[in-house]
Amino acid sequence: MKRSMVLLTWGHSNPRTAKTATGLLRFCPDECVAILDPDSVGKSAQELLEVGGDTPIVARLADAPQADTLVMGIAPPGGRIPEAWKAVVLEAIQRGMNILSGLHDFLSDDEELSAAAKKHGVVIHDVRKNTFKKVARRPDLNPNCLRLHTVGHDCSVGKMIVSLFVARGLQQRGIDAEFVATGQTGIMVSGSGLPVDCIVADFVSGAAEQLVLDNQHHDVIIVEGQGSLVHPSYSAVTLGLLHGCQPHGLIFVFEAGRETVGGLEHVTLPDLATQIQLVETMASIYQPCPVIAVALNGRRLSTAEAQETARRVSEELKLPVVDVVRDGPDQLLDVVQEFYNSQQWRLAATK
Amino acid sequence: MKRSMVLLTWGHSNPRTAKTATGLLRFCPDECVAILDPDSVGKSAQELLEVGGDTPIVARLADAPQADTLVMGIAPPGGRIPEAWKAVVLEAIQRGMNILSGLHDFLSDDEELSAAAKKHGVVIHDVRKNTFKKVARRPDLNPNCLRLHTVGHDCSVGKMIVSLFVARGLQQRGIDAEFVATGQTGIMVSGSGLPVDCIVADFVSGAAEQLVLDNQHHDVIIVEGQGSLVHPSYSAVTLGLLHGCQPHGLIFVFEAGRETVGGLEHVTLPDLATQIQLVETMASIYQPCPVIAVALNGRRLSTAEAQETARRVSEELKLPVVDVVRDGPDQLLDVVQEFYNSQQWRLAATK
Repeated sequence: MKRSMVLLTWGHSNPRTAKTATGLLRFCPDECVAILDPDSVGKSAQELLEVGGDTPIVARLADAPQADTLVMGIAPPGGRIPEAWKAVVLEAIQRGMNILSGLHDFLSDDEELSAAAKKHGVVIHDVRKNTFKKVARRPDLNPNCLRLHTVGHDCSVGKMIVSLFVARGLQQRGIDAEFVATGQTGIMVSGSGLPVDCIVADFVSGAAEQLVLDNQHHDVIIVEGQGSLVHPSYSAVTLGLLHGCQPHGLIFVFEAGRETVGGLEHVTLPDLATQIQLVETMASIYQPCPVIAVALNGRRLSTAEAQETARRVSEELKLPVVDVVRDGPDQLLDVVQEFYNSQQWRLAATK
Repeated sequence: MKRSMVLLTWGHSNPRTAKTATGLLRFCPDECVAILDPDSVGKSAQELLEVGGDTPIVARLADAPQADTLVMGIAPPGGRIPEAWKAVVLEAIQRGMNILSGLHDFLSDDEELSAAAKKHGVVIHDVRKNTFKKVARRPDLNPNCLRLHTVGHDCSVGKMIVSLFVARGLQQRGIDAEFVATGQTGIMVSGSGLPVDCIVADFVSGAAEQLVLDNQHHDVIIVEGQGSLVHPSYSAVTLGLLHGCQPHGLIFVFEAGRETVGGLEHVTLPDLATQIQLVETMASIYQPCPVIAVALNGRRLSTAEAQETARRVSEELKLPVVDVVRDGPDQLLDVVQEFYNSQQWRLAATK
């Protein structure tokens, strides 16, 4: 059922922090009716968040009377709700709106909000809330389903975006492909998935494995990646996901110009060649799993710079490099289709 | 305060499954008054669990009237309580005993048990229960505290045992060393620590980092390792812990004769040299972190076989190999002291 969503980003309306909002604006544009940010009325969504075109920015919920859902539009480290937002959430509930949140702090655990939701007959959906408790068993998987997985050199570089571009692009080419969400925004976009970063550590790989079991009736699945193997805070999530989904091939995503870990600027990121070698090694412990392509996030670059960077990185890494946001996914889809058709992944997996 | 503990292992009285019981028997022998297993009365603890000497095995709680604590003595995958145990736990509570459990399923969440505990004024201590929510920030750490960490080729090979032998051995040599517990049994033995495998995945490294911050006033800390980087189910825990505790040096533990992943016998373990290279690589992303010694678990071997294996592996890996359970920790302690005195770790860390 189609939602009619207001995206709350007040006080955090930048493309980096408001990545839940930008994900929904990019991939569910016809369900986003407004952005709520009293400080930014008059600007365009595009200007504010680098996506979203002319989606209206409103100061009050009353300015979006048709909306049925209020979305917490941010994903801060640690995942707490900004103090000022609680009154807005309460007002939305009183207006009869459902609440959609991907924060680590669960809104449904707040007694006042929970009582109000009950009274007004609305749902507080904390997409990160889960009781998943299943250990990965590394079972035999469907040998006819190609499992692709996005990885990257850091958090928030575009792994979800690339995954969705590939899945939707393959679908448009008539291939039975499915995007498999593993994070809060991906789950909000696709309506299913598991929030692997919020699962008890012993069961992270089990969650990734469960997602594969649930989706391997498709010909191709693209499992959304999280974090990076070199992230000082989140590498556990990355490795658990990588091992649990047993990919045949990886798409490596990086943001040009990012030299340090996002949010931990005192930590310098290892170079791309080193990172690709690391992730191929950790992915290939029990079956070969190469990086088949690199996705360039050229957000900080001019078109000329992005082209030059893609050329240089491609030459250095001997891999195709594609900026899917700027150039569209076609070149990347060609690489994926070639890999799919090569049968290389089937032979490798039976070794 | 000294506890007087009955270890419940009924139906699971083997050294592998009952590893919480064996850990307590080995490291807190004077607090263990009995093992509760109606099926094994007449056997010795040593015979049943390969440790514990002549600790009595009893059929009923009434046979250990002096006990004040009932311990769930097992750590099954997934961590559920065996169905038959609930009546025993209830009886213990009614007798006024505290309950100590390291299972993933929390006994304090059971309404009947929780109500009984309240009524009888006893505590149900679920050591895995936690609300830890702090992201690792990779801060500067005390440069004068040597951080050692045990890793291994699989789960349940002796990482906790080696860590405790090293910490206690260094203490006996007059060094200010501390064991830092990261798992349920280690926490029960030492009375502090965090259960990293039961922390929400985004915060695993944060928990390891917190443990270092809490203990780095000591000259040497030995952070207990968990799982392995190649474990299909638990590698997330291993990597999060490895990155969060920022070790200067590693002790690699393996069980001779174990060729497949414990509990997942269809998965063949990579060889030791490959595993050591993997863990050194993943540990050394931001600072050099060598494996300084190998600890051999020779449980399945005769003394002659253990000696021959140690010699062969040492030659192959060019590392000292010590069976601390059979031969005592002295040779390993010498290696650790040499590393500590070499200053190599201080210089490396400032690079």
